[in-house]
Amino acid sequence: MIKTDILIIGAGPTGLFAVFEAGLLKLKCHLIDALPQPGGQCSEIYPKKPIYDIPAYPEILAGDLTHKLMEQCKQFEPGFTLGERAETIDKQDDGSFIVTTNKGTKHHAPIVAIAGGLGSFEPRKPKIDNLSDYEDKGVEYIIKEPEFYRDKKVVIAGGGDSALDWSIYLSDVASEVTLIHRRNEFRGHLDSVEKVQELKNAGKINLITPAEVIGVEGDNKIEAVTVKQGAKTFTKACDHFVPLFGLSPKLGPIANWGLEIEKNAIKVNNALDYQTNIPGIYAIGDVNTYPGKLKLILCGFHEATLMCQSAYQIINPGKRFVLKYTTVSGVDGFDGTRKEAPKAVVKAID
Amino acid sequence: MIKTDILIIGAGPTGLFAVFEAGLLKLKCHLIDALPQPGGQCSEIYPKKPIYDIPAYPEILAGDLTHKLMEQCKQFEPGFTLGERAETIDKQDDGSFIVTTNKGTKHHAPIVAIAGGLGSFEPRKPKIDNLSDYEDKGVEYIIKEPEFYRDKKVVIAGGGDSALDWSIYLSDVASEVTLIHRRNEFRGHLDSVEKVQELKNAGKINLITPAEVIGVEGDNKIEAVTVKQGAKTFTKACDHFVPLFGLSPKLGPIANWGLEIEKNAIKVNNALDYQTNIPGIYAIGDVNTYPGKLKLILCGFHEATLMCQSAYQIINPGKRFVLKYTTVSGVDGFDGTRKEAPKAVVKAID
Ligand SMILES: Cc1cc2nc3c(=O)[nH]c(=O)nc-3n(C[C@H](O)[C@H](O)[C@H](O)COP(=O)(O)OP(=O)(O)OC[C@H]3O[C@@H](n4cnc5c(N)ncnc54)[C@H](O)[C@@H]3O)c2cc1C
Ligand SMILES: Cc1cc2nc3c(=O)[nH]c(=O)nc-3n(C[C@H](O)[C@H](O)[C@H](O)COP(=O)(O)OP(=O)(O)OC[C@H]3O[C@@H](n4cnc5c(N)ncnc54)[C@H](O)[C@@H]3O)c2cc1C
Repeated sequence: MIKTDILIIGAGPTGLFAVFEAGLLKLKCHLIDALPQPGGQCSEIYPKKPIYDIPAYPEILAGDLTHKLMEQCKQFEPGFTLGERAETIDKQDDGSFIVTTNKGTKHHAPIVAIAGGLGSFEPRKPKIDNLSDYEDKGVEYIIKEPEFYRDKKVVIAGGGDSALDWSIYLSDVASEVTLIHRRNEFRGHLDSVEKVQELKNAGKINLITPAEVIGVEGDNKIEAVTVKQGAKTFTKACDHFVPLFGLSPKLGPIANWGLEIEKNAIKVNNALDYQTNIPGIYAIGDVNTYPGKLKLILCGFHEATLMCQSAYQIINPGKRFVLKYTTVSGVDGFDGTRKEAPKAVVKAID
Repeated sequence: MIKTDILIIGAGPTGLFAVFEAGLLKLKCHLIDALPQPGGQCSEIYPKKPIYDIPAYPEILAGDLTHKLMEQCKQFEPGFTLGERAETIDKQDDGSFIVTTNKGTKHHAPIVAIAGGLGSFEPRKPKIDNLSDYEDKGVEYIIKEPEFYRDKKVVIAGGGDSALDWSIYLSDVASEVTLIHRRNEFRGHLDSVEKVQELKNAGKINLITPAEVIGVEGDNKIEAVTVKQGAKTFTKACDHFVPLFGLSPKLGPIANWGLEIEKNAIKVNNALDYQTNIPGIYAIGDVNTYPGKLKLILCGFHEATLMCQSAYQIINPGKRFVLKYTTVSGVDGFDGTRKEAPKAVVKAID
């Protein structure tokens, strides 16, 4: 059982900034995310694209935003349960909550902050009979750890940035990389498309286009895929088949937690603290809704900050919290580090 | 008469970010500030100190934050009335407002956003008889334009960073700089204290400590100050006397505009759009109050953003605004510049 002060569901920009704000109040956080990496939409959908409306950043790449937020909250040592989906929530007699993931990991906290964005990112799966039988037996929809593919034969399917970028990356790791796409045209960053062309010319990536994987086979684990290219159909041996057709967010199990839902989002009290209809459960960032709501990153930052103040009151009933400026008080990390402004000197001139 | 879409009172971080958000909605802004430079508390009180809780900035100097916000809103060409205090507001028959400053400058806009922070920064003045008779006749409390002091004899009074830094700066501009402080000890950045010591040793700054200016004299304009040092009293000729005893914020005239005031701040509707009790007048940032309000910069950013959306509806009644991501739509400045993300390519690999 993982124990923490604030259990955050969703490690997107809102959840990450909540870790920092909670830390300023000496509250510890743990985050659950279905994705293998933090950053939410920013890292999954558009890491290499610039955002122009993060305050005081005339321009920042979404991936860099994630890195900056990770760096900022690092002092407060957040815990992570990555690659798992928060599935059920159980209210305990003392008002605290136990949240269990699809892999059975249990988390216990007095406060739950749902920062689930548009929902848990779930892979789009190709329609192939028996495909689900081979999941975790050579079929993966997300690449979590590239080393896993060292010296293996890998078939990747897809025509976007993920398919391109992982084909490039694995061409140096796997013993064989085959990229299959149903068109000749790929859609992605120019650099990536050109790099794949180059690796294909050098014989480091097998390219099969226009073609489709229509079957998988093997005893107990995957051994080959069936490929249909025009009129012909053939078998291609492999150790892994990785369809990278993108991830799409689904509110999913959270929709059944007894929370008030409106337009696929969770209703909160924006006049006070972004708490939901269940006391102790907050919803912040893209996942919530209220009159005038804007699904913007900067709004999630504000919501996370007010939420933490309210959570502090629940965790420390009766204790009065006085707002301190970070500039004036400095920041004391849970890791023992301290940031502080250089002090002014008082010094005679003679 | 200066005309604009949103008239912003206060050019602190909240007001500056409002310019950017308004610009995204094609609304033009003009800002009034009592200070000679933008940045509010950040530039007036602690420009060289780090802030740690600006989202995605593990650390940023308050002065740099101001520069970044100026850079971000530059595309939307804000107008500025600096060094003037917004004094009166008059509602017109068509619902628009005319705001007049203490210097008589008039501004006309359908929307007024008060981003006045803790109030208009007003200088702390030393208690010297007749001092006010010499204001703008050689007595200044804020240095707006250093060139104004070229080849002049300047007496500066004060013992903090402003007094130190301006003495250093003007030692290269004025024909003579005299720094008077009632103690031998100065309070400021170590660099500044050491630099003044050095310039004093080199004969480029006259230092008179511990001492006090107790009188000013001159026909029509200042010609000398009377200095008291211990038991002795003497006259020091000068063209300018600049007491730099700090600025302190005062809500001031805004308190009489008919707005609901609570604890020296303006009550707003935080459940919707940060509008005040007078339709068309909003209050954002440190100047407003509502249940759970935190006087933090990041909260001002969110409030400014929601305020702009609401203002858009008032200015464009019935027009439906659809939120666009800057990453997806790019940013079109009023100055003709455009920022946009590099497009993905669709390209065949053969
Ligand atoms: C192409 C594009 C461009 C954009 N441009 C801008 C822009 O310019 N400016 C701007 O402000 N915004 C922009 N956005 C929106 C911005 O990305 C979102 O507002 C922001 O990511 C929301 O952050 P969040 O932390 O609330 O949620 P998300 O980033 O969506 O993160 C939520 C996380 O929660 C996880 N999760 C959800 N449910 C569960 C569960 N049950 N179990 C485990 N994990 C779960 C998800 O996997 C996800 O990682 C853009 C979005 C896109 C797609
Ligand atoms: C030492 C110190 C450290 C701080 N540290 C932090 C920190 O770490 N994190 C954080 O988030 N915040 C911090 N703050 C607070 C932060 O600076 C404020 O929240 C922020 O400046 C508020 O921005 P604003 O734009 O709302 O108002 P302000 O910055 O106060 O700007 C308001 C402006 O409006 C002008 N104005 C007001 N009335 C009038 C009028 N009638 N006519 C003309 N002009 C007018 C004023 O002159 C002023 O320039 C700190 C503050 C101080 C003093």
